[in-house]
Amino acid sequence: MTEVTAEPTTRSTDKVYNVGVYGATGYSGQILMSLLKKHPNANIVFATSESSREIQDGVELLPVAEAPLTSVDAVFLALPHGVAGQIAAQAVSAGVRVIDLSADLRLDTPELYKQWYKHDHPAPHLLPAPYGLPEINRAKLVNAQYISNPGCHVTTVLLALYPLAKQQALTKDAIIADTKTGISGAGKALKLDSMFVEVYGDVRPYNAGRVHRHVPEIEQELHKLQADVGPLVFVPHIVPIDVGLLATVYVKVKAGWDAKRIRAAFEEAYKDEPLVDLLPSGKVAQIKPVAHKNNAIVAVGDLVGDTLIITSALDNLRKGAASQAVQNFNVMMSLPETTGLL
Amino acid sequence: MTEVTAEPTTRSTDKVYNVGVYGATGYSGQILMSLLKKHPNANIVFATSESSREIQDGVELLPVAEAPLTSVDAVFLALPHGVAGQIAAQAVSAGVRVIDLSADLRLDTPELYKQWYKHDHPAPHLLPAPYGLPEINRAKLVNAQYISNPGCHVTTVLLALYPLAKQQALTKDAIIADTKTGISGAGKALKLDSMFVEVYGDVRPYNAGRVHRHVPEIEQELHKLQADVGPLVFVPHIVPIDVGLLATVYVKVKAGWDAKRIRAAFEEAYKDEPLVDLLPSGKVAQIKPVAHKNNAIVAVGDLVGDTLIITSALDNLRKGAASQAVQNFNVMMSLPETTGLL
Amino acid sequence: MTEVTAEPTTRSTDKVYNVGVYGATGYSGQILMSLLKKHPNANIVFATSESSREIQDGVELLPVAEAPLTSVDAVFLALPHGVAGQIAAQAVSAGVRVIDLSADLRLDTPELYKQWYKHDHPAPHLLPAPYGLPEINRAKLVNAQYISNPGCHVTTVLLALYPLAKQQALTKDAIIADTKTGISGAGKALKLDSMFVEVYGDVRPYNAGRVHRHVPEIEQELHKLQADVGPLVFVPHIVPIDVGLLATVYVKVKAGWDAKRIRAAFEEAYKDEPLVDLLPSGKVAQIKPVAHKNNAIVAVGDLVGDTLIITSALDNLRKGAASQAVQNFNVMMSLPETTGLL
Amino acid sequence: MTEVTAEPTTRSTDKVYNVGVYGATGYSGQILMSLLKKHPNANIVFATSESSREIQDGVELLPVAEAPLTSVDAVFLALPHGVAGQIAAQAVSAGVRVIDLSADLRLDTPELYKQWYKHDHPAPHLLPAPYGLPEINRAKLVNAQYISNPGCHVTTVLLALYPLAKQQALTKDAIIADTKTGISGAGKALKLDSMFVEVYGDVRPYNAGRVHRHVPEIEQELHKLQADVGPLVFVPHIVPIDVGLLATVYVKVKAGWDAKRIRAAFEEAYKDEPLVDLLPSGKVAQIKPVAHKNNAIVAVGDLVGDTLIITSALDNLRKGAASQAVQNFNVMMSLPETTGLL
Repeated sequence: MTEVTAEPTTRSTDKVYNVGVYGATGYSGQILMSLLKKHPNANIVFATSESSREIQDGVELLPVAEAPLTSVDAVFLALPHGVAGQIAAQAVSAGVRVIDLSADLRLDTPELYKQWYKHDHPAPHLLPAPYGLPEINRAKLVNAQYISNPGCHVTTVLLALYPLAKQQALTKDAIIADTKTGISGAGKALKLDSMFVEVYGDVRPYNAGRVHRHVPEIEQELHKLQADVGPLVFVPHIVPIDVGLLATVYVKVKAGWDAKRIRAAFEEAYKDEPLVDLLPSGKVAQIKPVAHKNNAIVAVGDLVGDTLIITSALDNLRKGAASQAVQNFNVMMSLPETTGLL
Repeated sequence: MTEVTAEPTTRSTDKVYNVGVYGATGYSGQILMSLLKKHPNANIVFATSESSREIQDGVELLPVAEAPLTSVDAVFLALPHGVAGQIAAQAVSAGVRVIDLSADLRLDTPELYKQWYKHDHPAPHLLPAPYGLPEINRAKLVNAQYISNPGCHVTTVLLALYPLAKQQALTKDAIIADTKTGISGAGKALKLDSMFVEVYGDVRPYNAGRVHRHVPEIEQELHKLQADVGPLVFVPHIVPIDVGLLATVYVKVKAGWDAKRIRAAFEEAYKDEPLVDLLPSGKVAQIKPVAHKNNAIVAVGDLVGDTLIITSALDNLRKGAASQAVQNFNVMMSLPETTGLL
Repeated sequence: MTEVTAEPTTRSTDKVYNVGVYGATGYSGQILMSLLKKHPNANIVFATSESSREIQDGVELLPVAEAPLTSVDAVFLALPHGVAGQIAAQAVSAGVRVIDLSADLRLDTPELYKQWYKHDHPAPHLLPAPYGLPEINRAKLVNAQYISNPGCHVTTVLLALYPLAKQQALTKDAIIADTKTGISGAGKALKLDSMFVEVYGDVRPYNAGRVHRHVPEIEQELHKLQADVGPLVFVPHIVPIDVGLLATVYVKVKAGWDAKRIRAAFEEAYKDEPLVDLLPSGKVAQIKPVAHKNNAIVAVGDLVGDTLIITSALDNLRKGAASQAVQNFNVMMSLPETTGLL
Repeated sequence: MTEVTAEPTTRSTDKVYNVGVYGATGYSGQILMSLLKKHPNANIVFATSESSREIQDGVELLPVAEAPLTSVDAVFLALPHGVAGQIAAQAVSAGVRVIDLSADLRLDTPELYKQWYKHDHPAPHLLPAPYGLPEINRAKLVNAQYISNPGCHVTTVLLALYPLAKQQALTKDAIIADTKTGISGAGKALKLDSMFVEVYGDVRPYNAGRVHRHVPEIEQELHKLQADVGPLVFVPHIVPIDVGLLATVYVKVKAGWDAKRIRAAFEEAYKDEPLVDLLPSGKVAQIKPVAHKNNAIVAVGDLVGDTLIITSALDNLRKGAASQAVQNFNVMMSLPETTGLL
């Protein structure tokens, strides 16, 4: 990881913001709590859970209904979709900043949201929301009132595609993203598919093709970079690990894009990024080096004819969720972007 | 699995063949021994190991140099490439039948072999050998003097491609095969990459692109089915399981091939196959149902534009190695094909 | 494993019994179905599930209420305790034989049952039931009308203790049994403790001391062998595997019991047992060799002062449940004891 | 964890010590490097490896022979036994402080060392060395010239026994310690027993009884607390996880030691310890909460007759090795004990 070069102002780094965490006991919520507890510019004032009244990271858990929303500067929403948007709307109208880890603010229109999530959008007036993938969209996040934190597959796949898409280098052929993810991405809901005996010893594709809810999100953000790309073919796979996400992406590049020019595009894109490591030539991304870490890794692979292999990896609960939320908080508040993350 | 319909003659099923197993202590060799021990038409006369003199499945292990090659009807070679070909040549000249699980007889020419294996072929006069993927090549295996048993990735990927390739349905676009394999495929050689601590919690691409030695083998056999296909882009991944192999294959189909016609091609190809299960529409192949089993499963996925998703899975040590060797033995000897396997 | 020496009569081995399986979709029920499907003397007439109407191993699943109990010779009950006992009573009064895999018939009195299971016994007139651990209790199982199949920990621990207890060699000191079990023992019930993310990477003691329901069952059967033993101190641990159970047992032996005499007692106890392997001196029991197998292994360890270490292992779903049920069926019906199991 | 109460002097916390790490690429060495890199009072001047010249945590690896030993204030030795002692002797004679993570300085006499390690001691004049288990032996570590860092099983078992032993509460009966450890404890040496396929799905006792080299170390330190205890019966087990160690300890307590008094002894022992958590009554130690953490947890279980169950857990590479080494460095240098560890 390259260190950030811009120095923060002294003023901003001294400030401590009061924050609230909605949904503290889920897998992402737990990581978020532990990161915020050590964050020098954050003070967790409250944290919510509907199922527990225990103390977590020094904070007594409350139900959402009892959370003192207006007592804080910012809230993190690690809530189910449908619910998060309602709290986001309350927070915004009360002048409280929001980082929403749910899917509620990710799609730009209520219509698209309803098509994929099968119910009306809980807060359509908040759409479109600033999309919290700082490496792609940093400028729109500084001082934002609210930020939508991306899905884990979305972050992984977009980091693989971004350097070429922003240079209009992709053809109109299908973009193939084959991802392998730890089961924590399915959350704590009790399902047979998440039981140890079922996951152990298996690799299982699911929602293959254009079925997963991250498909419209990837395409929406990708089209903002390059409009004339092909359809996404997306096959996620559950692998028997707890955390981690690897994307193996296969794309076709336009004539004129040879290995050297491709490499240069990736180096240009990520040379100053503190939380995205571009691996040296000849290396591939894999899960272990980023598990329990707050950064992502990206590797440019071989070009076979006009088909390019790109691999990218991150911890689905961290750069794919909680640590990206903290990164967005840092950008929003003009704190050094890696505060509390390295 | 559909049951075989053709009844074997009484004569053939009563016969017991004396067999020898070269390389009995490797992961494939161990499975092979256990299958042959229960096989009603096989009697293990000897088994070799260079490192152990123990009794295994009732047979005392010998070094290769002491194995009574000419005392048996057939030998199975679970030896390293380079060595297996030498024993194969000795066996063939002695009139002993051979099922070679190594890579030595898989590629059709000594030149191609040298290009990929980096040394001269040990027995070029045996090339090209009958290629032991019965579902594709059964006719050439009956009564063959020797058979080359396919690589595990090759079997998995070819079973996914066979129904369309034999109908000339593939375009000239790149064929993308993204596989996920248990680490037993790397064998018992002591390598840091095979240690528990390294594999655990990781998913790791390796030999990505056109680097893996199964690439020329897949392409060679595929071209026999359909000559004008595109290049193979092959990215295998190590996943933290012991056995099992899943291929997620992305291909483009020619105009005129809609979902219904594709489905029909797969049903036609596998309807009478006892050891390949075609899953119902809407299902995907996954590893757990075939782990420790002798069959493969294949599933036709969605067609996104002209990109088709196919998944296939098997146990890399069984249908990807040892049980396919027994299947080949059965075909070679005109025994019922599933003898000792169901 | 030593092969059985006694030859079955031709008459008994030709007979095919119609059987029913109650609770076919649980982890033990699934194994039971697959074993019975291949059993030459069993014909599965019906199988029940409250949640599924699918075909499993060629049999269409029915709810319990629709199962034709009286149409079969014997039933296997892989049902929750409380329910199993009711069906057992119906079957017995209808003259149908019963192998009950639940806990309902394991404890000898309704009072002890109520103390540990917290509700009235569903069929107190069936108590005490013949206890289906054939290696200890074979004589009482032949031609029994109903048999209670032991708990998985109970089988593992009793096989470790049996050779010494039947010789009255144990002192009155506490018997310490430290077991390590795969999570399939907890069944398919959806619980946070059984989720992949929770089990992965953990080793967790549970019900430590004299809390687990297998405590009274172990002590009851142990006391029948040797009355004056000490209390059982039992600490089971969940380990991150799907199947398998290892017991490390620490006992004190009376004066006069040296290593040689102890060894002789174990050899005497297991020399003719086809489904219990006594390991050679210097070896320890471990899980991998018995996972997915129908036998148990036992090893006598070092004697440190008067403290003896014994290890034993089995597959909790097989010799700890389903394959032991089939073994009991074989004994009950005077079939060769390993029919369908080797 | 209770926070440390004693405030460090300003002087000590401002000081930055130059340190060298011998053996930086082993599993413990890697953790040690990452901890020292973030340690505010340590500056890694050099790090050694015999196999790699790469950059690790910003330091270029050197062979031992080229390491500038005298350029640093302190060295950490994560070297094989036999080798570590030689470097320790050189360092001590050069006035460089030593924290030795190997076994070389753990046993108090060269004779005992030779008995267990089968070769002459490399530096007998350094024996006995201050034993670096701060919770038990803190006073002797402050300002020590060299410290012997304990074995992982030793730390885990002694933390379970310490509160009672220091009160002379144990009887002369055998002390039974049944441990479950991740395979990283076996190090990076290439062994079949450490391969993924071998460890996966297994639980395996090893060195059972009084065979493991941690036996004399546990007994030596235990006898310093209470002289008249019984022999240790020690059975370690490999479980399929990478890191973590759980000890389930069974001891007999003297008359007069009821549950309440036992609980009080543990609370007294650990109430001010920042890196040992005593769990509340009714809880058991398990591995997951301490994996990748620098603290240990201890739980007092049930008293069955006079047999007490105690569980303790830690990360074998951290509180069982590298983070305990940093803790010892902190104590040695009079830095706040948890510096760089929380």
